[in-house]
This record gives sequence, C-alpha cells and structure tokens, in this order.
Amino acid sequence: MIKVGVIGYGYWGPNLVRNFATSGKTTLAMVCDLHSKRLAQAQLNYPGVKVTTDYREVIADPGIDAIAVATPVSTHFPLVMAALQAGKHVLVEKPLTSSAEEGRRLLEEVEKRQLVLLVGHTFTYTGAVRKIRELIHSGELGLIWYYDSIRVNLGMFQHDVDVIWDLAVHDLSILDFVLNAKPLMVSATGMCHVAGRRENVAYLTLFFDHNLIGHINVNWLSPVKVRQTLIGGSKKMIVYDDLEPSEKIKVYDRGITVSKTDEQRYQILVDYRTGDMWAPWIDRTEALKTEVRHFAACIEEGSRPLTDVRVGLRVVSMLEAASQSMKENGRPIKLQLEELA
Amino acid sequence: MIKVGVIGYGYWGPNLVRNFATSGKTTLAMVCDLHSKRLAQAQLNYPGVKVTTDYREVIADPGIDAIAVATPVSTHFPLVMAALQAGKHVLVEKPLTSSAEEGRRLLEEVEKRQLVLLVGHTFTYTGAVRKIRELIHSGELGLIWYYDSIRVNLGMFQHDVDVIWDLAVHDLSILDFVLNAKPLMVSATGMCHVAGRRENVAYLTLFFDHNLIGHINVNWLSPVKVRQTLIGGSKKMIVYDDLEPSEKIKVYDRGITVSKTDEQRYQILVDYRTGDMWAPWIDRTEALKTEVRHFAACIEEGSRPLTDVRVGLRVVSMLEAASQSMKENGRPIKLQLEELA
Amino acid sequence: MIKVGVIGYGYWGPNLVRNFATSGKTTLAMVCDLHSKRLAQAQLNYPGVKVTTDYREVIADPGIDAIAVATPVSTHFPLVMAALQAGKHVLVEKPLTSSAEEGRRLLEEVEKRQLVLLVGHTFTYTGAVRKIRELIHSGELGLIWYYDSIRVNLGMFQHDVDVIWDLAVHDLSILDFVLNAKPLMVSATGMCHVAGRRENVAYLTLFFDHNLIGHINVNWLSPVKVRQTLIGGSKKMIVYDDLEPSEKIKVYDRGITVSKTDEQRYQILVDYRTGDMWAPWIDRTEALKTEVRHFAACIEEGSRPLTDVRVGLRVVSMLEAASQSMKENGRPIKLQLEELA
Amino acid sequence: MIKVGVIGYGYWGPNLVRNFATSGKTTLAMVCDLHSKRLAQAQLNYPGVKVTTDYREVIADPGIDAIAVATPVSTHFPLVMAALQAGKHVLVEKPLTSSAEEGRRLLEEVEKRQLVLLVGHTFTYTGAVRKIRELIHSGELGLIWYYDSIRVNLGMFQHDVDVIWDLAVHDLSILDFVLNAKPLMVSATGMCHVAGRRENVAYLTLFFDHNLIGHINVNWLSPVKVRQTLIGGSKKMIVYDDLEPSEKIKVYDRGITVSKTDEQRYQILVDYRTGDMWAPWIDRTEALKTEVRHFAACIEEGSRPLTDVRVGLRVVSMLEAASQSMKENGRPIKLQLEELA
Repeated sequence: MIKVGVIGYGYWGPNLVRNFATSGKTTLAMVCDLHSKRLAQAQLNYPGVKVTTDYREVIADPGIDAIAVATPVSTHFPLVMAALQAGKHVLVEKPLTSSAEEGRRLLEEVEKRQLVLLVGHTFTYTGAVRKIRELIHSGELGLIWYYDSIRVNLGMFQHDVDVIWDLAVHDLSILDFVLNAKPLMVSATGMCHVAGRRENVAYLTLFFDHNLIGHINVNWLSPVKVRQTLIGGSKKMIVYDDLEPSEKIKVYDRGITVSKTDEQRYQILVDYRTGDMWAPWIDRTEALKTEVRHFAACIEEGSRPLTDVRVGLRVVSMLEAASQSMKENGRPIKLQLEELA
Repeated sequence: MIKVGVIGYGYWGPNLVRNFATSGKTTLAMVCDLHSKRLAQAQLNYPGVKVTTDYREVIADPGIDAIAVATPVSTHFPLVMAALQAGKHVLVEKPLTSSAEEGRRLLEEVEKRQLVLLVGHTFTYTGAVRKIRELIHSGELGLIWYYDSIRVNLGMFQHDVDVIWDLAVHDLSILDFVLNAKPLMVSATGMCHVAGRRENVAYLTLFFDHNLIGHINVNWLSPVKVRQTLIGGSKKMIVYDDLEPSEKIKVYDRGITVSKTDEQRYQILVDYRTGDMWAPWIDRTEALKTEVRHFAACIEEGSRPLTDVRVGLRVVSMLEAASQSMKENGRPIKLQLEELA
Repeated sequence: MIKVGVIGYGYWGPNLVRNFATSGKTTLAMVCDLHSKRLAQAQLNYPGVKVTTDYREVIADPGIDAIAVATPVSTHFPLVMAALQAGKHVLVEKPLTSSAEEGRRLLEEVEKRQLVLLVGHTFTYTGAVRKIRELIHSGELGLIWYYDSIRVNLGMFQHDVDVIWDLAVHDLSILDFVLNAKPLMVSATGMCHVAGRRENVAYLTLFFDHNLIGHINVNWLSPVKVRQTLIGGSKKMIVYDDLEPSEKIKVYDRGITVSKTDEQRYQILVDYRTGDMWAPWIDRTEALKTEVRHFAACIEEGSRPLTDVRVGLRVVSMLEAASQSMKENGRPIKLQLEELA
Repeated sequence: MIKVGVIGYGYWGPNLVRNFATSGKTTLAMVCDLHSKRLAQAQLNYPGVKVTTDYREVIADPGIDAIAVATPVSTHFPLVMAALQAGKHVLVEKPLTSSAEEGRRLLEEVEKRQLVLLVGHTFTYTGAVRKIRELIHSGELGLIWYYDSIRVNLGMFQHDVDVIWDLAVHDLSILDFVLNAKPLMVSATGMCHVAGRRENVAYLTLFFDHNLIGHINVNWLSPVKVRQTLIGGSKKMIVYDDLEPSEKIKVYDRGITVSKTDEQRYQILVDYRTGDMWAPWIDRTEALKTEVRHFAACIEEGSRPLTDVRVGLRVVSMLEAASQSMKENGRPIKLQLEELA
C-alpha cells in the first residue's frame, strides 16, 4: 500500500482524500491545511488520520511515499519542488504551475530523480474523453478539421487566476490528449467585468498544422451552464455534451463530400451527407477513482503517467501564451511544444 | 400602391416576390433573373407578371417605383447604383456591398438623391430581436457586459463569400441594432477545409467601450444546427435560442453582486444571485412581411429605414475588418464607425 | 395520368390538391367546396382548374377516375359511398367513417366493385413509422412489451368529434401498422372541460395477447406540444419523438435480462443492461407525396393499399369501442378485429 | 434534542440517518438492520452509534423518543404499531402500510395516544411541489382541469410491490397535497412482463368532482427517464419537470377563452391565448432535511404533520383501489375519502 499525504483540504482536497482512502492501493497517512476547522472535519470523516497545518511536516515524514497537492495554483511550484526534493512521488492539481518557467524546473527535477509526477487533468480519466480519443485515433472520424468547445456557467470568481487558467485549462488538457497534433500558435481575447479582478470571459483560437483549428469559449458570468464540444472530421463528427446524463457522446455520420469533375475543370462540387447518429455506451466510473489508481500503478511499475509533467508543461505553455495574446487583444503568439513531446 | 421590380429569383427572391405581391401596399410589376426556367416558375405562380432576363429593362421601366435586389453579393453595388441613378427606391439583400468603399459610394448617392435604401437585415424585423432591443434599451438588463453568439450548421458553401460574410453578417446586424454601442476593434480567426474555397469556420471578437465584448462563432461544417446567443448584463441576462419554437427569449434574473467591505479595505465581495426566469411572449409575424411594409412606409413618408444605408455600411465595415484580421490570424484591426452614426 | 377530383378545400384539402397536381402520376381535374371563397383561392393557385360547390358534379363527371374526400368525418360515408357507386377510386381522410357500421358497408361496396379505397392514415407513409415497423418486424427489438404514446398540444377544438377521434386516431393507425398484433380489449377514460363540447382529454389502454399493452394519451389543452412514443421490447427499446427535426427515432440497447438460478430454485434474477443508442437515418420525403404515389400505383396495378378499407375499419372499430369505454369511465370493452385481418 | 432510532439501513435508511445526525434538533441514538454488514457501515460513518439487529431493542429503549422506519412495505404495520404502543413518535417511509385496513388501525392508535406519525411523502417537502400548491391555492391557475404525470425509467423491480405502490405513490401523494379536491373514483390498467413478478407498467385515471381528471403513467421498463407533470387550469397551466436542474416549474399563460355569442344562440366560441412563460425561483433545500425538521417541530409543538396518518391512509386507499381496478382491466372503483379529511 502506498502511503499518501494530502496538502490542501478545501474544495477539491476532500475528493482526493476520499479516493486515496478507498482505492485499495493507497492509504491516507496525513492531511494538511492552513485552516484547523477543515482539519477537524477531516478527522471527523477519517477518525485516526494525522493532521497538520504545516506542510513541511508532511514532506518530512519518512513514512509517506507520495504527496497530493490541492492548493491555490501559485503555491504549486514550491510545494511540488519540495516534495520531489524529499524523494516523494507527487499528484498535483491542474494547472501544473503558474508559469512555463516553473514547469520546466519541475520537469528537470522529475527526470533527474525518476519520480512519478501526475498532473490532475481529471477529464483525461473520464470514459467520455477516452472514448473520443479512441474514435479519433482509430481514424473513424477521418482527418480532424476543428475542435470547438464552450464551457460557461455562473461560476466562482477565482482570486489568483483568470477564467482561462480556471476553465480553459480543462479544454486544453482534453485537446492535448485526444488530438494527434500540438498547436503552433494561439490568439486569445477576453474581458474583465469586475474592477480589481481578472478576466471572467475569454475566447481562444488555436492553430495547428494541416488546417486543424481549435476554439475555446469560457465564461464565469453565463446565466446557463453549457459544456459542449463539437469535433469535426472529414468522415464523421462528434458532439460531446458533458451535461447529458447518459448520451454524452454522439457520433454523426454527416459532412460533405468534395469532388472535382473532369468535364468542368476547376469546378469543385460539394455534396452533403446525412446518415445515422450513434451514441456509444460510456464507462461512468468516477474519473478521480481511475486517476488515483493510475497514479498508484505508475508508482508501482515505475511508468510514466498519461498526464505527466510534460503534458502539464505543454498545457501551462498554452495558458501562458493565451494570457499574453489576450493582453494584446488577440495578437497571435507562437508556441514551441515540439520539445515537450 | 408602390410598383416593385424584383431582380434575382433564386433562393431568397421568391420570398421577396411573395411578400411584395401580398403586402397590400405594394404590387409586383416585374421579375428579372438570368435563368428563364426560374422566370417560368415565377409566371406560373404569378400569372400575368412581366418577366425579363435583362436587369436594365427593370431599371429603365418608368412604371416601376422601387427595386428589390436579391442577387450574389458581388453584383449588389452595380445594380443598386444603377437603380438609384434611375431614381428608384431600393431594397437590397444583406450584406449591402462587397466592400466598404462601394458602400460609401452608395451612401453618397442615396443622400444626394433623397431616395429610400433599405438593407435586408431580416433579423431586425423579427419579434425576438425587437424584444431584445427593447429589454436592453429599457435598462432592464443593466450595463451590458457581453454578447456571445453561435450560428453553426451543415450549411451551403457559398461561391463568392466566406462564412463571415454569409453567417456572421446576421449577428453583426443584430448586434448593431440591439446594443447602444459600436465596436472599436475586431479580432478574427478562421480556417478553410475545402481546397479552393473560402473559410468555412470563423470566430470573431468585437471590442467596445465600457468593457463590453462581443463574440461570434460561425461554421458551415457543424453536424448539428445551433442558433444561440447569450447576452450578459449587470442586472439580468438573456438566452436567445432562435430554434426554440415558442420560447425564443429567456430572461434570467441571475448574476453577481459586487460590493466592497468597509472593514477589510480593498476586499471585493462577489455574491451570486439566482432568481426567476421569464420568457416573454414574442410576436411571430414573418420578418419579411414586417420588412416589406416598413419599406413601403418609408417610401410613402420619406423617412429613413431602420436598416438604412449607414447601418448597412457599418456592417460591411465590420465584415471587411474581420476578414482582414482573419487573414492575419487574429491581429486586432481598429474600426471607425462614429462617422456612420 | 389519373384524373382526380378533390372534395373539401379547407385545412387539409390544399395539401392533397398540391400533391395531386405535382405527383407526376395524377392530374387535378376538379375542386369542390361549399365555400366559394375557398374555390377562388384554389383557382388563384391552380389557374384553369374546374371548381364547383356541388359534390355531385365531381362524382358524376365521367372524365374523373378518382376522388379524394377531405371533409368533416360525418360526411365521409355518404360521399365515399356515392363515389364508389359511380365507379370511382377513393382516397378518404382519416378516420374512414363515424361508425363501424358505416365502415362495414363501405368494405362490402369496395369488395363488390373491385375499386381502390385508400384511407389517409398519413403517418403510415412517413419514413419514421416505416422504420419502426421494419425494426419491429425484423425481430431486432425482441418480443414487444408495450407501446406508449403521448400526443398533446393546445389544439383546435373539433366540432363533430372528440379528442380520441381527432388525435388518438393517429396512434391507433400507427400501432395497427407497426405491431404484429391486434388489440383484444380497450379501456378508456376522458373528460370534457368546455360545456357543450366533446371530451378534450382522453387516455386509452389497449390489451393484446402475449402481455403486450398499448397506451395513448391525447389532450387538446396542453400548454406544450408533445409527440412522443416509447416502444419497449425484450431486446431493445425505441423512443420516437416526432418533433425532433433530425433524430426522430432512437433505438436503445437497454433493458433487463431475466434468469433463474439453479441453486436457489424459484429465484428470479433481474439484471439491467445499458448499451449504445443509435438513431438511424430517416427518409424525410413528405408523407402525403408517398401516399398519393401509392394511391396512383394501386389504381394502376389493381393492388390493395397499405391503408385499405379493412385497416380503416379496424381503426374505426377501436375508436368506437374507446368512446364507449370512456362513457363508462374505463369499463373494458372487447374488440373483435380478427374478421378484419 | 429528540433522540431517534432508525430501523432499516438499506437504500433509503442512510439518508434518514444522515439527516437525523445533522438536523440540529435530533440526535441519532441507535440504528437497526437485519444485515450486520450494513450496521458495520453505519458505525464506520457514525463512530459511537449503537447498533442492533433486533428491532425490539430500539422500541424498548426508554432513551429513545422517536423511531424512523425504512423497511419493506409489508413490515410497516407491525413495526409502526409496536413503536406507537411503546409511546414513540414515528416517521415511516411511504406508503404507510400495505392495506387500508392496516392504515385505519394505525390511525386509531395515533389518535388514541396523541403521538406524532409522519409519513415520508418526500415530494411534499420539496420546493417545487410546495410552489405548485401555492400557485394552485392562490387561484392563479383558475379552475383545475387536469393533472397528468409520467414517471418512467429503467427502474428496480421491487420484490413485494407492483409499480403502482413503488412509483405512482409519489404522484398520488403530490396530487393529494397540491389539489383542493379528493378523487371519487379510479380506473387503472397495467401489465407484468416478467413471469413471477408484479405489474411493471401501469396507467391510472382518477376522477374528481367539477370535471377534474388525474392521470398517472408509471413504468419500470422505460429506456429513458421521464419525470414530467402537466397541470391544466382555466387561466394558466404548469409544466413540472423534476429532471430539469434549474427550471423545474414553468407557468404558461396559455389556454382557451370560451364565450357564447348573443346573435348566434348556442354558438360556443373557443379562442386561443398564448402569452408569457415564467419559471419561478425554486427553493432547493434537500427535501429530507425539511421533512426531518418538520417532524421534530411537530413533536416539540404537539402539532399534526403535513403528511400525517390521515394523508398516508388516503394514499394507501387510492393505491388499493387502483390495484383492484388494474386486476379488472380498468373497471372503475369508487373511493370514499371524505371521512379521512
């Protein structure tokens, strides 16, 4: 059994703790939070668990094998670095760090020490997103033309990050996982409507090779909740609606057929196809359960997680470039992600 | 009765003809199209109507008071200019012209001759869009924060224009009509997926004063049809779904309340409000019927149409700037629309 | 070309006329209606068509091969009988007659004269209903357990019939077409909410052999329009939503698996299955177009229509028994439809 | 603090236990279940709680003030009777008992002993159902014409009851709560599709005075989950969709206006009205939390619960009559509920 200490018992921490306590492959060794009231709650739910308000106690504990970090983004770098340097495996919530520079330093440290660092890109561990990857990689959709996502709701205003770092991070990590390509350039726009806060509305366009285009629409001030992604391919197309209780993914046999006629040279014919729609059965296992088991398996086998530090760093690089472009009202910013393959 | 000649009897022309024939204020004098087969169809439906394949015959006819133009965009300028110079009032389909320069020349001509030029921004004449304008102008929504529209479907690939000129033109004309502000800058991105054709996917961001932001998502290659607009205000918010048969507009008493506390200076508190939703009754008169009657009334009273040449020119200026920005992958382009107020 | 006279140019008549005029296999010979204003409209739309206010003129015309009847239900019997006796083929709107007795007399006449009598059960000619029949008859759904339909809206109050004869007639004709079985008994309940009118809300249960049960919910006073049918089979289940623009039929690989264990005798185990959903492509040809062509083909080939007089009489028998049961607050009434196979 | 013992820790029991443990007005004294594995789970979640497999221990405990019963229906009567005779207040899950006769005996006992007996008609304690009652009782809907509910899904096959006792009980208790009237007669039909089990599909019609009609459609074998109720009134109408996350209740200003003209005597005119739709904000407090607090308040104040033994007995009487009618294929069965007002 892998002994795990969890730092941060706020919004997401309790979910991590619950899964570490029940995974069958991990045990909960210690919980750390700055608020003692939250620690009391942890002790109520997990009688006998050790608690502390000092994260150094968790990191220094020789009985702990791995550390999970669920704290504000700006603290990810120092906490993860300290844990790695103490020889601990780490699971850190997304995004990995608050800058690409910090991410690169963690990458070096992980590679030097041969430790497991898993970034909590939770959607990667859902049945729906895994099915989308499978459909794209099997070639069933044909050449991918666009990936277009909307993720809006009346959401919590974050203190330390803008809506890109809070919501678009989900889409960027999904897109990184399901597509066979990495973006080359990003153009982003956005706006802030509460004086003294960060942008609460943002729009990102990602440019890839081979005419693939990505788009992400995120908003903390929408009256309705929408979680919808359209993925267009040359053969089939997907509508992924994460709010649908049962039919999250619909595959449409629709599109166009382009042909050129011999008689009329240079004449391009566009014909429409409409065919069946198909909603595959989706595994509904809780994503975090799958994620925690994968983390444990990677530690046991010494293997690289699906959402490792390189993936985390790619996503942070996209976030950083998008924020920069947003500051310049959409001016396109180049990305160099090949080195992080 | 105003005698009307219609040039163009393709996709939209028959709708114009039907409304001119039945409005009670106009009569159908002549129909012109390059295809004699279409003219035969017009004669079948309107026994006794004069037809011609030569548009100059319509323009030269002294018995005709007004001319409606429903031809490809690239032909709008010469046809409308010729009609104005012959002293005819004109109703021209959207967009007004294929360039702002052409639009400016039509503006001059219209003002010199004191004729009525109505641009067929059809949505302006729907009950839903008029209701949205009313809700915004009454102040019921508070300060407007964003206007976010998605207009996608498996659509016809146009020969002479890209998806911005074909679909975003609807949103730009709606936005121009309902908001109290004009955009100052635009950033657009897009992509073409059929070799030899124009862009079939595009994303536009419009920047206004006072932190208002607009966004438009248009796509000819979507497996599903979506026509949804979110309008966020500081007091209330609107969801406008044009595919809903009866509840096209929903007004949400939702949002945030921002306050500053005395004790903790510089501390900004964001509270959430969720209240009732309300779907007002919407007048469902056919938009074109309202448009044609408005055209007739403007001619009779010598008044300026809701969608006059200045409105048409503003929309063409936005389209032109958006296409330019799209060519440069999102580089923001400034707009100067004040002169066109 | 088959020459057709149409009696009744009110709500549905114009649709029949349009299809007879354009089918390519029929020509429109005469239109009859009691209101000369409607006849003027018919002449406007079909210049040169003969019109009359006297139905006897249509029936007596030796140049007419077939007659279509789209008049109030109470007039179906005398009009159809007269047409048959004059040797004309007949297409009559649903329901066939206002009593089973009248229906039996038409059956005798049709069989004696070897004429074609098609009852306008329009849904039988839709792509969706044909697909449902195909799915059931192929055995793909397994044994059929229930057929449950809801058909409600803010509908027109009919003058001469109750909501069963106006709306449930659609479901009864669909059910008769798609199922392999005929109902043995009916229990119906309903209520009238406008003094002096017939029932505007009704609920029908139909009992079949082999535990198959049917249910129909019809209502003229619903605030929303619903057209939804659930069909449960032992292998798969169908949801048919006629208001869905594109995915009218969804086939669910869901249900239960019943087994008995050896160890625990008499122990019945019920396991749940949830699998893929599939929405087959549906032919969207206008039903009336298919119906009119089928009518013409039956006349040419001397064959029996899909919705012939026996089908029409079965449906009228069900309607009659349902109305009787409704009068007695649900008392079950037996049906004898075997003779009409 | 009221000390509560809970009998039954299966599907629903844990929800009761959680609410008794956290209501602030009650404390959890003991948990009883026949399965010691479940009791171990209870002790894990509530360290220190007393547990037992013998219900007599709970009832005999002098330190316990009130007992909650969440066991199979057939055991309700003996358990509740024993608890009352031991002087305990009781909260019992719905339905109250498995026969009206048993219910009458509990009614006598409760009235004799002046104890609180609350039946767990949970929906009565939801914000949505309370809002519906308020809308009906305020007269805003006008005269109520019909109440039409569909409650279907791929549900658990119950061992000891049919689908009426499992699902329709919800609708009967809602209808009893929100309407100003009691049903006078019931006609029910249904079918069983698994040999050796009870009916899994059923349809109930309830007849009231003043032309009010109720209808309930319940099904354990539906491929999709539906929870929708239409309530039609002479002024306004309600659509209540319990699966809608935020807009559970929509109030439509739609319907008909009936008038009689003077000139044409006996001529009834039916005009259609379509107006605004309005979705009031709904309190989303967990129903069971409200129910448990209400139970505690009734004990403290010696007052009668909203869902007292008379209400529970009325619902059991309806269930019993419906089952009887279902056995006779819809034959209407009279109800005598006035005595239970």
